[in-house]
Amino acid sequence: MIIPTFQDMLDAHVRIAPHIHRTPVLTSSYFNELTGAELFFKCENFQKAGAFKVRGASNAVFGLSDDMLEKGVATHSSGNHALSLSYAAGRRGIPCTVVMPRTAPEAKKAAVRGYGGRIVECEPSTSSREATFAEVVAETGAEFVHPYNDPRVIAGQGTCSRELMEQTDGLDMVIAPIGGGGMISGTCLTLSHMAPEVQIIAAEPEQADDAYRSFKAGHIIADDAPVTVADGLKVPLKDLTWHFVSNHVTDILTASEQEIIDAMKLTWQRMKIVIESSCAVPMATILKNRERFAGKRVGVIITGGNVDMDTLPWLQG
Amino acid sequence: MIIPTFQDMLDAHVRIAPHIHRTPVLTSSYFNELTGAELFFKCENFQKAGAFKVRGASNAVFGLSDDMLEKGVATHSSGNHALSLSYAAGRRGIPCTVVMPRTAPEAKKAAVRGYGGRIVECEPSTSSREATFAEVVAETGAEFVHPYNDPRVIAGQGTCSRELMEQTDGLDMVIAPIGGGGMISGTCLTLSHMAPEVQIIAAEPEQADDAYRSFKAGHIIADDAPVTVADGLKVPLKDLTWHFVSNHVTDILTASEQEIIDAMKLTWQRMKIVIESSCAVPMATILKNRERFAGKRVGVIITGGNVDMDTLPWLQG
Repeated sequence: MIIPTFQDMLDAHVRIAPHIHRTPVLTSSYFNELTGAELFFKCENFQKAGAFKVRGASNAVFGLSDDMLEKGVATHSSGNHALSLSYAAGRRGIPCTVVMPRTAPEAKKAAVRGYGGRIVECEPSTSSREATFAEVVAETGAEFVHPYNDPRVIAGQGTCSRELMEQTDGLDMVIAPIGGGGMISGTCLTLSHMAPEVQIIAAEPEQADDAYRSFKAGHIIADDAPVTVADGLKVPLKDLTWHFVSNHVTDILTASEQEIIDAMKLTWQRMKIVIESSCAVPMATILKNRERFAGKRVGVIITGGNVDMDTLPWLQG
Repeated sequence: MIIPTFQDMLDAHVRIAPHIHRTPVLTSSYFNELTGAELFFKCENFQKAGAFKVRGASNAVFGLSDDMLEKGVATHSSGNHALSLSYAAGRRGIPCTVVMPRTAPEAKKAAVRGYGGRIVECEPSTSSREATFAEVVAETGAEFVHPYNDPRVIAGQGTCSRELMEQTDGLDMVIAPIGGGGMISGTCLTLSHMAPEVQIIAAEPEQADDAYRSFKAGHIIADDAPVTVADGLKVPLKDLTWHFVSNHVTDILTASEQEIIDAMKLTWQRMKIVIESSCAVPMATILKNRERFAGKRVGVIITGGNVDMDTLPWLQG
């Protein structure tokens, strides 16, 4: 296990700067009044490829040695890492193959293909995904860029909270959603060096609360196929992300499906921004734990905005 | 007819500055590639009360003489002016009555009440709206703040393109939707003084194209109850807005209902911002008249973001 360093994050930031946006930090007087906190939204929904994952993917792709360029890169992903890796590979002009669940949103599949990525579909479970992926790697010889359990990816994701700290005048807490733990690990990597006093809160769907149960148990607990509207957060922790979560995360909070959907719709209505269900989880947990956040300056990482506009969760069922 | 001056716009900007946002100007590499133009989106969807109309409404409310404060203000509006006037009146602590079509989006009615405004409903036609409003004024004695045919309102709306010019490094054109013509008139007022070389393009739904037909005929043509998804653009030109349109607008372009809905959905998908159907009309006309805009630096006024999330137009029918 190679643990990325703070210097790796700084190097990543230089490497990826030409390929990413320094996304804006928005505030909302409505949500400040509603929560009693002072919230700073780091808007990675405005990021290239529509999500923070382009940071880690670009760091891996642009750090690739010349002898690997012809074989290209490959990955499995619930969506945003897939299209981020396709975007980065396209920018470098190398092949990219992604294994995606056949149930992934059509908007994400279309975007992967739009960036020049090749999709191989699997069933929507961790076991099917990993089996299918093994076949792809055997066939192509491509460099595997794991969506989160990869030091290059975590170093890349860490650049997000570096910008957030530079764009705000001190924070008490940073909250981000947790699935496999890539963004939270990058946040831990950066903040534990830059601002160790800042609390790091992870937010997770109740129906995919393996990170929460792992955190309480003190070891990784993985579920095979959780069901949640927050489709980016179904994957389990792995050794590298568990290292950061177990050492640096202050707490993990959870929210129900309805609370996530309500927070997503309310954010669209009041902030006029399109955010994914996954990044509505932090807002949902803030709204149900107001006492925890009131009076605090809280950075909220809005992780992405890639949404299938034809299947909005508050209009289903 | 009192025609507002450039100095009135400058005075308005000082008067309303504490009550409005200086909204950001966004760019989109996706839409630049798609259109061949360089587009600068002035995001009034992020404005207080969710729309540019708060500029004109605040100018009227905060310019009100002391002897009118007790009777307050009143208006008729298809939505955004209603909630903007309610917002401004609430900030000044005076009463506000609005006549709204019973078919107006529920989100807008709820927002008006949320700001403390009182709603009196009418039928969705210009004739019913004006009759109902006459009763309200007789009853309350309130100061009428017309949604667009009012020099205070036009001077306020003109502050938007002043900011747009300050935030960009020169433009060839500015495009905005046209309904009653308040935003376009404000744009004319400001640009004819600040940057007379900038072309001013108005964009209108084909199904409510009274401004287009007026522009071609050389006199005002008004329809009583046009039907369009762009519910903010159903009202006709009046003498004051016709003055600005006939003297300063370069051209009026139109788009079909499907083109408007497609442009709205595409903007949500790619720019990750929530915009109203009304302000999708400019993007729709740019997409169908690419040759007109290619190679040009174009300011696009995103007029508002107040959307009923339960009745999105691409999911209807």
